[in-house]
Amino acid sequence: MGPHPAVAAIRLAVRRVLHEILHDVLADHTPAHPGTEHSDTAHEQSPPPLVLVACSGGADSMALASALAFEAPKLGFRAGGITVDHGLQPGSDLRAAEVVVRLTELGLDPAESIGVSVGRNGGPEAAARDARYAALDAAAERYGAAAVLLGHTRDDQAETVLLGLARGSGIRSLSGMAAVSGGPGAARRYRRPFLQLDRHTARKACMVQSLPVWDDPHNSDPAYTRSRLRHEGLPALEKALGKGVVEALARTARLSRDDADALDAWARQAEASVRDAAGLLECAKLYALPPAVRRRILRRAAIGAGAPAGSLFARHIEEVDRLITGWRGQGAINLPGKVVVQRQGGRLVIRQG
Amino acid sequence: MGPHPAVAAIRLAVRRVLHEILHDVLADHTPAHPGTEHSDTAHEQSPPPLVLVACSGGADSMALASALAFEAPKLGFRAGGITVDHGLQPGSDLRAAEVVVRLTELGLDPAESIGVSVGRNGGPEAAARDARYAALDAAAERYGAAAVLLGHTRDDQAETVLLGLARGSGIRSLSGMAAVSGGPGAARRYRRPFLQLDRHTARKACMVQSLPVWDDPHNSDPAYTRSRLRHEGLPALEKALGKGVVEALARTARLSRDDADALDAWARQAEASVRDAAGLLECAKLYALPPAVRRRILRRAAIGAGAPAGSLFARHIEEVDRLITGWRGQGAINLPGKVVVQRQGGRLVIRQG
Repeated sequence: MGPHPAVAAIRLAVRRVLHEILHDVLADHTPAHPGTEHSDTAHEQSPPPLVLVACSGGADSMALASALAFEAPKLGFRAGGITVDHGLQPGSDLRAAEVVVRLTELGLDPAESIGVSVGRNGGPEAAARDARYAALDAAAERYGAAAVLLGHTRDDQAETVLLGLARGSGIRSLSGMAAVSGGPGAARRYRRPFLQLDRHTARKACMVQSLPVWDDPHNSDPAYTRSRLRHEGLPALEKALGKGVVEALARTARLSRDDADALDAWARQAEASVRDAAGLLECAKLYALPPAVRRRILRRAAIGAGAPAGSLFARHIEEVDRLITGWRGQGAINLPGKVVVQRQGGRLVIRQG
Repeated sequence: MGPHPAVAAIRLAVRRVLHEILHDVLADHTPAHPGTEHSDTAHEQSPPPLVLVACSGGADSMALASALAFEAPKLGFRAGGITVDHGLQPGSDLRAAEVVVRLTELGLDPAESIGVSVGRNGGPEAAARDARYAALDAAAERYGAAAVLLGHTRDDQAETVLLGLARGSGIRSLSGMAAVSGGPGAARRYRRPFLQLDRHTARKACMVQSLPVWDDPHNSDPAYTRSRLRHEGLPALEKALGKGVVEALARTARLSRDDADALDAWARQAEASVRDAAGLLECAKLYALPPAVRRRILRRAAIGAGAPAGSLFARHIEEVDRLITGWRGQGAINLPGKVVVQRQGGRLVIRQG
């Protein structure tokens, strides 16, 4: 008799991602000139690559840790686990130590708790996330890990898309979390094997494997936007629109990501053709581009001049765009980061004041 | 003392759109060779152009009718109104007659009720919409109207975006309703002056002008998806994400529309370069394109071969895409409309079986 369907599902998801990681590892080790004895020897002597799992002790990441412990040895990987102690609640250090015990019991080695101090930049959720990823990046570097697995599920993805929707800043913010994303010095460090798996399956897999899980009180604290979305917003949306909403939101994320990537590539490529010899953007040439491409070029230019990406909203770019599409002698436009945009002699002058 | 702010807001919205229509009308009448006496004379003799408003008798379209009646003469337009009797409720003909009386009282001429019979294609909401637009198209043709105004508000737009999101079929379905859209024989027939105005403002404008309005029972019937969204889904989302959600959704619609237009244009342009001499799509060339562009070409090709656009989902196109990105000798893929896709000799063969 095989494992419970939920356990089979989480293992399959992890196995697929381990295959991808293996593919990347082998590509990195393949000698540029095949047949060079030296490289072959080096590859044989190197220890098995390590894959880390980031584990909060919650159901999603405990399920992920259990599947990694089961699948990693079969593909010649070592498996390790990191839990980040954000220090935001009394006793969080004890809980982190408990998670380390559980990871060790699953056979993960190393299994480590890393304490971080959470700042205030961008609100409590963003600050905690920044601190967490910095710790994970550092751990991955220190252990020379081939990858770090994250337990985000399809439900998390749906919530992320809705949070992006609420910003109303375009399709990049609808594209949610990537299945593969980078950290400093490693373009494909983070992997999210459960991004197409629902939360319920992860929870079920923990239950049938008798894995104790910890429910983060933040996840049900209505002070947090994501928590309100999870417990009120999404259920109401499902009630109105039907049960397929979570899947539809996750699919929207994938499609939006590809669309945003393609348009960014177009804008990067078109940018050179709309600059004059002095490097200034020519309004007539910008005007001839599709609005979607033109606005991306304007956004890139504003960021290039020093406007912080996170404070640069769609309405800012729309205002700059009107210097091109609705020119009636407007004055300078002030953007965040003290960036000033002016139209002069059919060119845009963008500089930090 | 000027008008109430809500009345000022609806009038301004209509005035802006009338200016756009005037611009289009003048462009149409401008002689190709300026200075030709004949054309000038013809223009002077033609009657003032007519703008129609589609009016259900509800607050949004009654507000629109009142603003059109006020603004049209000032710009040299005649104003008329059409109400469509869908015949879905007993007494709907009497109600339609009542709307005609109100439109006439506002000074609209013509003011007409048109009865339609609603089919069943695509569900009750889609069938009613199809019948309504067919009637409006016919009326616009019959009266030679320069444009037909529709009363959709920013709230309607937000609901439409969420309905598109629930389909999960990509950014085109997130782009909601266009401010300007076409009908048969008229590329810019329909205008939505209130697309950036909230429903509350329209209702307020009716109240302060003492215009009686009719509340369509469908709008609060939980059997209708849009009604559930309006009364439960969106309020819950606003509670979770904050009051700016409706505006964010409307902005998402505008941005998504521009993005989808740009990518469609790219796909149209790239398509020629990926076909061989016999007109077949070459897999190697498709593979080199960004996924977002490639999938649009595949979708166009499937529709071109006879697949009905409304039944062709993202998962269909993803499966066809795997013939290119994950080729392992798969068999033929069946699409809606009996369209069959096969990979043969590095080409895609797409035909109706």
